[in-house]
Amino acid sequence: MKIAFLFYEGMTALDAVGPHEILSRLPEASVFRVARRAGPIQTDSQLILTADYSLTDVTSADIVLVPGAGNATTLSDHPETLEWLQSIHATTTWTTSVCTGSLILGAAGILSNLKATTHWAAFDRLKLWKAVPTKARVVEDGKVITAAGVSAGIDMALMLSSKIAGENFAKTMQLGIEYDPKPPFDVGSPEKADPVIREELRSRMVANFIKAPYELSN
Amino acid sequence: MKIAFLFYEGMTALDAVGPHEILSRLPEASVFRVARRAGPIQTDSQLILTADYSLTDVTSADIVLVPGAGNATTLSDHPETLEWLQSIHATTTWTTSVCTGSLILGAAGILSNLKATTHWAAFDRLKLWKAVPTKARVVEDGKVITAAGVSAGIDMALMLSSKIAGENFAKTMQLGIEYDPKPPFDVGSPEKADPVIREELRSRMVANFIKAPYELSN
Repeated sequence: MKIAFLFYEGMTALDAVGPHEILSRLPEASVFRVARRAGPIQTDSQLILTADYSLTDVTSADIVLVPGAGNATTLSDHPETLEWLQSIHATTTWTTSVCTGSLILGAAGILSNLKATTHWAAFDRLKLWKAVPTKARVVEDGKVITAAGVSAGIDMALMLSSKIAGENFAKTMQLGIEYDPKPPFDVGSPEKADPVIREELRSRMVANFIKAPYELSN
Repeated sequence: MKIAFLFYEGMTALDAVGPHEILSRLPEASVFRVARRAGPIQTDSQLILTADYSLTDVTSADIVLVPGAGNATTLSDHPETLEWLQSIHATTTWTTSVCTGSLILGAAGILSNLKATTHWAAFDRLKLWKAVPTKARVVEDGKVITAAGVSAGIDMALMLSSKIAGENFAKTMQLGIEYDPKPPFDVGSPEKADPVIREELRSRMVANFIKAPYELSN
Protein backbone atom coordinates (compact mmCIF):
# COMPACT_ATOMS: atom_id res chain seq x y z
CA MET A 1 0.00 0.00 0.00
CA LYS A 2 1.96 2.93 -1.37
CA ILE A 3 0.62 6.31 -0.27
CA ALA A 4 1.98 9.53 -1.75
CA PHE A 5 1.34 12.90 -0.11
CA LEU A 6 2.15 15.82 -2.39
CA PHE A 7 3.87 18.59 -0.44
CA TYR A 8 4.56 22.08 -1.80
CA GLU A 9 5.53 25.53 -0.54
CA GLY A 10 2.55 27.41 0.87
CA MET A 11 0.40 24.32 1.44
CA THR A 12 -1.86 24.16 4.50
CA ALA A 13 -0.25 21.81 6.99
CA LEU A 14 -3.46 20.47 8.54
CA ASP A 15 -4.85 19.49 5.11
CA ALA A 16 -2.11 16.89 4.90
CA VAL A 17 -1.39 16.09 8.55
CA GLY A 18 -5.00 15.22 9.46
CA PRO A 19 -5.25 12.45 6.82
CA HIS A 20 -1.58 11.51 7.32
CA GLU A 21 -2.24 10.64 10.95
CA ILE A 22 -4.83 8.10 9.78
CA LEU A 23 -3.69 6.82 6.38
CA SER A 24 -0.09 6.27 7.49
CA ARG A 25 -1.45 3.65 9.89
CA LEU A 26 -3.21 1.60 7.22
CA PRO A 27 -1.96 -2.01 7.21
CA GLU A 28 1.34 -2.25 5.35
CA ALA A 29 1.32 1.41 4.41
CA SER A 30 4.46 2.86 2.88
CA VAL A 31 4.15 6.60 2.92
CA PHE A 32 5.97 8.88 0.52
CA ARG A 33 5.95 12.59 1.28
CA VAL A 34 6.80 13.98 -2.12
CA ALA A 35 7.67 17.44 -3.37
CA ARG A 36 9.26 18.98 -6.43
CA ARG A 37 12.49 18.69 -4.55
CA ALA A 38 12.95 16.61 -1.39
CA GLY A 39 13.67 18.77 1.65
CA PRO A 40 12.01 21.33 3.90
CA ILE A 41 8.62 22.70 2.84
CA GLN A 42 7.29 25.86 4.42
CA THR A 43 3.53 25.72 4.92
CA ASP A 44 1.18 28.71 4.98
CA SER A 45 1.32 28.83 8.79
CA GLN A 46 5.16 28.89 8.66
CA LEU A 47 5.41 25.38 10.09
CA ILE A 48 8.09 23.48 8.18
CA LEU A 49 7.35 19.93 7.05
CA THR A 50 9.82 17.69 5.27
CA ALA A 51 9.36 16.02 1.90
CA ASP A 52 11.36 12.79 1.90
CA TYR A 53 11.17 12.29 -1.84
CA SER A 54 11.37 14.26 -5.05
CA LEU A 55 8.72 13.84 -7.75
CA THR A 56 11.03 11.75 -9.88
CA ASP A 57 11.55 9.26 -7.01
CA VAL A 58 7.89 8.24 -6.96
CA THR A 59 6.34 6.97 -10.18
CA SER A 60 3.31 5.09 -8.86
CA ALA A 61 1.04 5.00 -5.81
CA ASP A 62 -2.06 3.24 -4.54
CA ILE A 63 -3.25 6.49 -2.99
CA VAL A 64 -2.22 10.03 -3.79
CA LEU A 65 -3.34 12.96 -1.63
CA VAL A 66 -3.09 16.63 -2.60
CA PRO A 67 -3.52 19.21 0.17
CA GLY A 68 -4.75 22.74 -0.43
CA ALA A 69 -3.26 26.12 0.33
CA GLY A 70 -4.66 29.25 1.91
CA ASN A 71 -2.18 31.49 0.16
CA ALA A 72 -1.03 31.83 -3.39
CA THR A 73 1.22 28.98 -4.36
CA THR A 74 3.79 28.66 -7.06
CA LEU A 75 2.58 25.33 -8.35
CA SER A 76 1.91 26.37 -11.92
CA ASP A 77 5.39 27.78 -12.16
CA HIS A 78 6.25 24.13 -11.98
CA PRO A 79 4.34 22.25 -14.65
CA GLU A 80 6.28 19.13 -13.69
CA THR A 81 4.11 18.91 -10.56
CA LEU A 82 0.93 18.81 -12.65
CA GLU A 83 2.54 16.35 -15.06
CA TRP A 84 3.55 14.18 -12.10
CA LEU A 85 -0.04 14.25 -10.82
CA GLN A 86 -1.39 13.20 -14.21
CA SER A 87 1.04 10.34 -14.47
CA ILE A 88 0.65 9.14 -10.84
CA HIS A 89 -3.15 9.36 -11.21
CA ALA A 90 -2.92 6.78 -13.99
CA THR A 91 -1.45 4.33 -11.45
CA THR A 92 -3.65 4.97 -8.39
CA THR A 93 -6.52 3.12 -6.83
CA TRP A 94 -7.58 6.36 -5.12
CA THR A 95 -6.73 9.93 -6.07
CA THR A 96 -7.66 12.32 -3.28
CA SER A 97 -7.52 15.95 -2.25
CA VAL A 98 -8.30 18.14 0.73
CA CYS A 99 -9.52 21.75 0.54
CA THR A 100 -8.21 23.63 -2.51
CA GLY A 101 -6.06 20.62 -3.35
CA SER A 102 -8.95 19.77 -5.68
CA LEU A 103 -8.16 22.90 -7.72
CA ILE A 104 -4.70 21.44 -8.26
CA LEU A 105 -6.21 18.12 -9.34
CA GLY A 106 -8.38 20.23 -11.64
CA ALA A 107 -5.40 22.06 -13.09
CA ALA A 108 -3.87 18.65 -13.79
CA GLY A 109 -6.96 17.77 -15.81
CA ILE A 110 -8.11 15.08 -13.41
CA LEU A 111 -11.55 16.45 -12.48
CA SER A 112 -13.05 16.88 -15.92
CA ASN A 113 -16.76 15.91 -15.71
CA LEU A 114 -16.29 14.55 -12.19
CA LYS A 115 -18.25 15.53 -9.11
CA ALA A 116 -15.91 17.25 -6.68
CA THR A 117 -15.73 19.62 -3.73
CA THR A 118 -13.21 22.07 -2.31
CA HIS A 119 -13.00 24.79 0.35
CA TRP A 120 -16.43 26.50 0.43
CA ALA A 121 -14.94 29.88 -0.50
CA ALA A 122 -13.45 28.41 -3.68
CA PHE A 123 -16.46 26.29 -4.57
CA ASP A 124 -17.30 27.99 -7.87
CA ARG A 125 -13.71 27.71 -9.04
CA LEU A 126 -14.17 24.01 -9.60
CA LYS A 127 -16.04 24.88 -12.81
CA LEU A 128 -12.84 26.40 -14.21
CA TRP A 129 -11.58 22.82 -14.41
CA LYS A 130 -14.86 21.41 -15.76
CA ALA A 131 -15.59 19.63 -12.50
CA VAL A 132 -19.17 19.34 -11.24
CA PRO A 133 -19.16 21.29 -7.94
CA THR A 134 -20.91 19.11 -5.39
CA LYS A 135 -21.87 20.23 -1.91
CA ALA A 136 -20.78 17.56 0.54
CA ARG A 137 -18.03 17.22 3.10
CA VAL A 138 -16.52 14.35 1.13
CA VAL A 139 -17.31 13.69 -2.54
CA GLU A 140 -16.50 10.42 -4.27
CA ASP A 141 -16.66 10.02 -8.03
CA GLY A 142 -15.06 6.87 -9.36
CA LYS A 143 -11.62 6.69 -7.87
CA VAL A 144 -11.41 10.41 -7.13
CA ILE A 145 -12.28 11.55 -3.62
CA THR A 146 -12.26 15.25 -2.78
CA ALA A 147 -12.79 16.71 0.69
CA ALA A 148 -14.07 20.17 1.66
CA GLY A 149 -11.94 22.69 3.58
CA VAL A 150 -8.96 21.77 5.79
CA SER A 151 -10.52 19.77 8.63
CA ALA A 152 -12.65 17.73 6.20
CA GLY A 153 -9.52 15.75 5.39
CA ILE A 154 -9.93 13.87 8.66
CA ASP A 155 -13.44 12.73 7.74
CA MET A 156 -12.24 11.81 4.26
CA ALA A 157 -9.32 9.74 5.56
CA LEU A 158 -11.55 7.81 7.95
CA MET A 159 -14.03 7.12 5.17
CA LEU A 160 -11.26 5.99 2.84
CA SER A 161 -9.70 3.81 5.56
CA SER A 162 -13.03 2.10 5.98
CA LYS A 163 -13.18 1.27 2.28
CA ILE A 164 -9.62 -0.02 2.24
CA ALA A 165 -9.21 -1.79 5.56
CA GLY A 166 -12.77 -2.24 6.77
CA GLU A 167 -15.08 -0.56 9.24
CA ASN A 168 -13.41 -1.97 12.33
CA PHE A 169 -10.05 -0.57 11.29
CA ALA A 170 -11.54 2.85 10.62
CA LYS A 171 -13.43 2.79 13.91
CA THR A 172 -10.23 1.89 15.75
CA MET A 173 -8.50 4.82 14.07
CA GLN A 174 -11.33 7.18 14.97
CA LEU A 175 -11.20 6.08 18.61
CA GLY A 176 -7.40 6.23 18.54
CA ILE A 177 -7.46 9.91 17.63
CA GLU A 178 -10.43 10.38 19.98
CA TYR A 179 -12.40 11.95 17.17
CA ASP A 180 -15.61 12.81 18.94
CA PRO A 181 -15.61 16.44 17.87
CA LYS A 182 -17.17 19.14 20.00
CA PRO A 183 -16.61 22.40 18.14
CA PRO A 184 -17.24 25.37 20.43
CA PHE A 185 -19.57 26.94 17.87
CA ASP A 186 -21.90 25.63 15.18
CA VAL A 187 -20.50 27.80 12.42
CA GLY A 188 -18.16 25.48 10.52
CA SER A 189 -19.92 25.59 7.16
CA PRO A 190 -20.98 28.63 5.11
CA GLU A 191 -24.67 27.82 5.57
CA LYS A 192 -24.31 27.95 9.34
CA ALA A 193 -22.00 30.95 9.60
CA ASP A 194 -22.91 34.54 10.34
CA PRO A 195 -23.19 36.17 6.86
CA VAL A 196 -20.97 39.09 7.89
CA ILE A 197 -18.18 36.80 9.08
CA ARG A 198 -18.62 34.60 6.02
CA GLU A 199 -18.46 37.36 3.43
CA GLU A 200 -15.51 39.05 5.12
CA LEU A 201 -13.62 35.76 5.14
CA ARG A 202 -14.68 34.89 1.61
CA SER A 203 -13.40 38.13 0.15
CA ARG A 204 -10.11 37.73 2.00
CA MET A 205 -9.69 34.13 0.81
CA VAL A 206 -10.86 34.73 -2.75
CA ALA A 207 -8.19 37.40 -3.10
CA ASN A 208 -5.64 34.72 -2.30
CA PHE A 209 -7.19 32.18 -4.63
CA ILE A 210 -7.15 34.67 -7.50
CA LYS A 211 -3.47 35.23 -6.94
CA ALA A 212 -2.86 31.51 -7.01
CA PRO A 213 -0.83 30.96 -10.16
CA TYR A 214 -2.26 27.50 -10.72
CA GLU A 215 -5.45 29.25 -11.74
CA LEU A 216 -3.78 31.80 -13.96
CA SER A 217 -2.44 28.96 -16.04
CA ASN A 218 -5.95 27.98 -17.10
CA MET B 1 1.53 37.17 21.65
CA LYS B 2 4.36 34.66 21.96
CA ILE B 3 3.25 31.07 21.39
CA ALA B 4 5.62 28.17 22.05
CA PHE B 5 4.93 24.69 20.70
CA LEU B 6 7.10 22.03 22.32
CA PHE B 7 8.27 19.52 19.72
CA TYR B 8 10.04 16.25 20.53
CA GLU B 9 10.96 12.97 18.87
CA GLY B 10 8.02 10.56 18.77
CA MET B 11 5.34 13.22 19.27
CA THR B 12 2.01 12.89 17.45
CA ALA B 13 2.02 15.40 14.59
CA LEU B 14 -1.73 16.12 14.60
CA ASP B 15 -1.69 16.99 18.33
CA ALA B 16 0.43 20.01 17.46
CA VAL B 17 -0.62 20.77 13.88
CA GLY B 18 -4.36 21.00 14.62
CA PRO B 19 -3.94 23.78 17.21
CA HIS B 20 -1.03 25.30 15.26
CA GLU B 21 -3.29 25.90 12.27
CA ILE B 22 -5.53 28.03 14.51
CA LEU B 23 -3.30 29.61 17.16
CA SER B 24 -0.64 30.70 14.67
CA ARG B 25 -3.30 32.97 13.15
CA LEU B 26 -4.10 34.80 16.39
CA PRO B 27 -3.57 38.55 16.01
CA GLU B 28 0.11 39.42 16.34
CA ALA B 29 1.09 35.84 17.05
CA SER B 30 4.78 34.99 17.05
CA VAL B 31 5.10 31.25 17.01
CA PHE B 32 8.13 29.40 18.34
CA ARG B 33 8.41 25.72 17.52
CA VAL B 34 10.83 24.61 20.20
CA ALA B 35 12.70 21.38 20.84
CA ARG B 36 15.66 20.28 22.89
CA ARG B 37 17.68 21.02 19.82
CA ALA B 38 16.44 23.02 16.85
CA GLY B 39 16.17 20.91 13.70
CA PRO B 40 14.17 18.02 12.26
CA ILE B 41 11.82 16.15 14.60
CA GLN B 42 10.50 12.75 13.60
CA THR B 43 6.90 12.24 14.74
CA ASP B 44 5.28 8.90 15.58
CA SER B 45 3.83 8.67 12.05
CA GLN B 46 7.30 9.26 10.54
CA LEU B 47 6.36 12.71 9.28
CA ILE B 48 9.22 15.09 9.96
CA LEU B 49 8.44 18.50 11.42
CA THR B 50 11.03 21.19 12.09
CA ALA B 51 11.76 22.88 15.39
CA ASP B 52 13.01 26.39 14.66
CA TYR B 53 14.32 27.00 18.16
CA SER B 54 16.17 25.22 20.91
CA LEU B 55 14.87 25.30 24.49
CA THR B 56 17.48 27.81 25.53
CA ASP B 57 16.33 30.24 22.80
CA VAL B 58 12.86 30.65 24.33
CA THR B 59 12.62 31.73 27.94
CA SER B 60 9.05 33.05 28.10
CA ALA B 61 5.73 32.63 26.30
CA ASP B 62 2.16 33.81 26.51
CA ILE B 63 0.98 30.36 25.48
CA VAL B 64 2.83 27.06 25.64
CA LEU B 65 1.41 23.91 24.04
CA VAL B 66 2.65 20.38 24.68
CA PRO B 67 1.54 17.66 22.26
CA GLY B 68 1.27 13.98 23.19
CA ALA B 69 2.84 10.88 21.75
CA GLY B 70 1.45 7.52 20.78
CA ASN B 71 4.77 5.78 21.23
CA ALA B 72 7.33 5.76 23.96
CA THR B 73 9.27 8.98 24.00
CA THR B 74 12.64 9.84 25.37
CA LEU B 75 11.56 12.99 27.15
CA SER B 76 12.59 11.98 30.65
CA ASP B 77 16.03 11.15 29.38
CA HIS B 78 16.16 14.88 28.98
CA PRO B 79 15.27 16.54 32.27
CA GLU B 80 16.07 19.89 30.71
CA THR B 81 12.78 19.61 28.79
CA LEU B 82 10.81 19.28 32.01
CA GLU B 83 12.84 22.06 33.62
CA TRP B 84 12.16 24.25 30.60
CA LEU B 85 8.42 23.53 30.94
CA GLN B 86 8.46 24.48 34.63
CA SER B 87 10.26 27.70 33.94
CA ILE B 88 8.20 28.67 30.87
CA HIS B 89 5.00 27.85 32.77
CA ALA B 90 5.93 30.53 35.30
CA THR B 91 5.78 33.08 32.47
CA THR B 92 2.63 31.97 30.60
CA THR B 93 -0.88 33.26 30.47
CA TRP B 94 -2.01 29.84 29.23
CA THR B 95 -0.26 26.49 29.60
CA THR B 96 -1.86 23.88 27.38
CA SER B 97 -1.57 20.29 26.25
CA VAL B 98 -3.15 17.89 23.80
CA CYS B 99 -3.55 14.14 24.35
CA THR B 100 -0.79 12.62 26.51
CA GLY B 101 0.98 15.97 26.46
CA SER B 102 -0.76 16.41 29.83
CA LEU B 103 1.33 13.55 31.23
CA ILE B 104 4.40 15.58 30.30
CA LEU B 105 2.94 18.63 32.04
CA GLY B 106 2.32 16.28 34.96
CA ALA B 107 5.90 15.03 34.96
CA ALA B 108 6.99 18.66 35.08
CA GLY B 109 4.93 19.09 38.24
CA ILE B 110 2.45 21.45 36.64
CA LEU B 111 -0.78 19.48 37.19
CA SER B 112 -0.62 18.96 40.93
CA ASN B 113 -4.17 19.27 42.34
CA LEU B 114 -5.45 20.56 39.02
CA LYS B 115 -8.33 19.15 37.00
CA ALA B 116 -6.96 17.77 33.75
CA THR B 117 -7.65 15.36 30.92
CA THR B 118 -5.60 13.30 28.46
CA HIS B 119 -6.09 10.57 25.86
CA TRP B 120 -8.88 8.31 27.18
CA ALA B 121 -6.60 5.26 27.26
CA ALA B 122 -4.18 7.07 29.58
CA PHE B 123 -6.84 8.69 31.73
CA ASP B 124 -5.92 6.99 35.01
CA ARG B 125 -2.28 7.92 34.58
CA LEU B 126 -3.07 11.51 35.42
CA LYS B 127 -3.24 10.44 39.07
CA LEU B 128 0.45 9.56 38.94
CA TRP B 129 1.06 13.27 38.74
CA LYS B 130 -1.53 14.19 41.39
CA ALA B 131 -3.85 15.68 38.80
CA VAL B 132 -7.61 15.32 39.16
CA PRO B 133 -8.68 13.28 36.11
CA THR B 134 -11.67 15.06 34.62
CA LYS B 135 -13.79 13.66 31.80
CA ALA B 136 -14.29 16.38 29.25
CA ARG B 137 -12.98 17.09 25.78
CA VAL B 138 -11.27 20.24 27.03
CA VAL B 139 -10.55 20.90 30.71
CA GLU B 140 -9.64 24.32 32.07
CA ASP B 141 -8.29 24.83 35.57
CA GLY B 142 -6.83 28.23 36.21
CA LYS B 143 -4.41 28.93 33.41
CA VAL B 144 -3.91 25.27 32.52
CA ILE B 145 -5.98 23.88 29.66
CA THR B 146 -5.69 20.21 28.74
CA ALA B 147 -7.38 18.54 25.78
CA ALA B 148 -8.35 14.90 25.31
CA GLY B 149 -6.84 12.68 22.57
CA VAL B 150 -5.27 14.02 19.36
CA SER B 151 -8.18 15.63 17.50
CA ALA B 152 -9.40 17.38 20.68
CA GLY B 153 -6.60 19.88 20.19
CA ILE B 154 -8.66 21.53 17.45
CA ASP B 155 -11.58 22.11 19.81
CA MET B 156 -9.20 23.35 22.49
CA ALA B 157 -7.49 25.82 20.17
CA LEU B 158 -10.80 27.27 19.01
CA MET B 159 -11.96 27.64 22.60
CA LEU B 160 -8.69 29.31 23.59
CA SER B 161 -8.82 31.60 20.54
CA SER B 162 -12.25 32.72 21.61
CA LYS B 163 -10.95 33.65 25.08
CA ILE B 164 -7.98 35.52 23.66
CA ALA B 165 -9.31 37.21 20.54
CA GLY B 166 -13.06 37.01 20.97
CA GLU B 167 -15.89 34.87 19.64
CA ASN B 168 -15.93 36.43 16.18
CA PHE B 169 -12.26 35.65 15.68
CA ALA B 170 -12.74 32.05 16.77
CA LYS B 171 -15.82 31.67 14.58
CA THR B 172 -13.89 33.03 11.60
CA MET B 173 -11.15 30.49 12.29
CA GLN B 174 -13.67 27.66 12.57
CA LEU B 175 -15.26 28.64 9.26
CA GLY B 176 -11.82 29.12 7.72
CA ILE B 177 -10.87 25.51 8.43
CA GLU B 178 -14.44 24.48 7.53
CA TYR B 179 -14.74 22.70 10.85
CA ASP B 180 -18.22 21.25 10.57
CA PRO B 181 -17.16 17.72 11.41
CA LYS B 182 -19.00 14.72 10.03
CA PRO B 183 -17.17 11.68 11.36
CA PRO B 184 -18.19 8.56 9.43
CA PHE B 185 -18.94 6.70 12.68
CA ASP B 186 -20.11 7.71 16.14
CA VAL B 187 -17.33 5.91 17.98
CA GLY B 188 -14.85 8.66 18.80
CA SER B 189 -14.99 8.37 22.59
CA PRO B 190 -14.56 5.29 24.76
CA GLU B 191 -18.18 5.44 25.94
CA LYS B 192 -19.43 5.25 22.37
CA ALA B 193 -16.97 2.67 21.05
CA ASP B 194 -17.49 -1.05 20.63
CA PRO B 195 -16.01 -2.58 23.83
CA VAL B 196 -13.99 -5.14 21.86
CA ILE B 197 -12.37 -2.46 19.70
CA ARG B 198 -11.85 -0.24 22.74
CA GLU B 199 -10.15 -2.84 24.92
CA GLU B 200 -7.95 -4.07 22.09
CA LEU B 201 -6.82 -0.53 21.40
CA ARG B 202 -6.44 0.30 25.08
CA SER B 203 -4.14 -2.63 25.74
CA ARG B 204 -2.05 -1.76 22.69
CA MET B 205 -1.77 1.89 23.72
CA VAL B 206 -1.23 1.25 27.41
CA ALA B 207 1.74 -0.92 26.50
CA ASN B 208 3.24 2.11 24.81
CA PHE B 209 2.40 4.47 27.66
CA ILE B 210 4.04 2.11 30.15
CA LYS B 211 7.19 2.17 28.11
CA ALA B 212 7.11 5.95 28.04
CA PRO B 213 10.15 6.95 30.08
CA TYR B 214 8.56 10.10 31.35
CA GLU B 215 6.41 7.88 33.50
CA LEU B 216 9.21 5.66 34.72
CA SER B 217 10.91 8.71 36.11
CA ASN B 218 8.09 9.24 38.59
